[in-house]
Amino acid sequence: MSTAAPSAAPSAAPSARRGRTRERLLDAAYEAFADVGLAAVSVEQICERAGFTRGAFYSNFETKDELFFALLDREKEQRLRQLEEGIDALLPTDGSGADLDDERIGAVVVELIAGPLDTRQWCVMHLELELLALRDPAVATRFTADRERLLASVLPLVDRALSRAGRAFRVNPEVALRLLITTHGELQRAAVMAGEDVGGPAMQRGIADVALALTRRVPA
Amino acid sequence: MSTAAPSAAPSAAPSARRGRTRERLLDAAYEAFADVGLAAVSVEQICERAGFTRGAFYSNFETKDELFFALLDREKEQRLRQLEEGIDALLPTDGSGADLDDERIGAVVVELIAGPLDTRQWCVMHLELELLALRDPAVATRFTADRERLLASVLPLVDRALSRAGRAFRVNPEVALRLLITTHGELQRAAVMAGEDVGGPAMQRGIADVALALTRRVPA
Repeated sequence: MSTAAPSAAPSAAPSARRGRTRERLLDAAYEAFADVGLAAVSVEQICERAGFTRGAFYSNFETKDELFFALLDREKEQRLRQLEEGIDALLPTDGSGADLDDERIGAVVVELIAGPLDTRQWCVMHLELELLALRDPAVATRFTADRERLLASVLPLVDRALSRAGRAFRVNPEVALRLLITTHGELQRAAVMAGEDVGGPAMQRGIADVALALTRRVPA
Repeated sequence: MSTAAPSAAPSAAPSARRGRTRERLLDAAYEAFADVGLAAVSVEQICERAGFTRGAFYSNFETKDELFFALLDREKEQRLRQLEEGIDALLPTDGSGADLDDERIGAVVVELIAGPLDTRQWCVMHLELELLALRDPAVATRFTADRERLLASVLPLVDRALSRAGRAFRVNPEVALRLLITTHGELQRAAVMAGEDVGGPAMQRGIADVALALTRRVPA
């Protein structure tokens, strides 16, 4: 629960107490989804874990699916913050970024992407939601809109990172970003299947290789 | 059922009758999986659709999962055949392939990849199997081995296609091929979610763009 406050989506801006309730429901849902899966978990199970009534649930979320999307929104906010703060912390603004060698660039990419959110649970939940979206047009619409919003949020950050690193995409930036996001998920699932750490060496090497492959140095 | 014979995996080489039984079970399983999903469908339901006894099922497959993998093997064989025959039919061996413009290259890529196997059902089944693999280590091992075998089979074909087209990957060929395969699946799922034809214009444009982006012309 200690992560609840900082991970609250700024956009929501609910009262502090309501915010805490919402965060506890999200944390409980994350655990429940991970244990039994999106389809199997009930609103009652989530409320039980969180220690709230169904009333508290429905005053925060209209449906279980809505809660699930809110959980992904929270993850997205955390990843965007890590990306933005990482870019500011790791990439110079004085043009010296162009001197970074591939090994260092790869290490920066990993710093920007890998982290505590790389878990088996997130992999499973993302794939469950995608499967749900393939079967349910309403979920698909929401899923696609979220994906597009994520791209729109990440594109300017990646653009900032590339200019600071003195690099540019070899291909259309949006195509490249979609490849990176898709590859990240693929590498995480491969790690889960290999019984390895989801954010471990294999994912890190893989994403660094692809990031380097999709970009090139540009003269200052 | 009319597609059963031509789509038999050449490697299997069972007796003709046994082969037909196996193909009918695979066809029935494809329909059943698509309707109710991998987890929900029972061996009984598959046998009922195919018009066979459970004995016939178990004389061909040890488990439902094994049938599912056999179904994917059959799809893989069909896609490999389409790819190999397409390369021989569409790409010249006299070096004139280097004269093909991007539009034509993109069209060839689509010819090699798009086809009758681009269905919502296949998308759902692939994702269901991947989800199963994330939850079950035994399925994960098989899933990963199949993925690696597919890569090993496709790499030399893609290499042949590129040399005939006078092109080369800008990045490590295996990384590039993984990107292409991953992107193909992603584009298909996006089409399903958009309610579009899975192998339709969006997927075709997308895969052609990525194939062109990942390759470059090479001097003869």
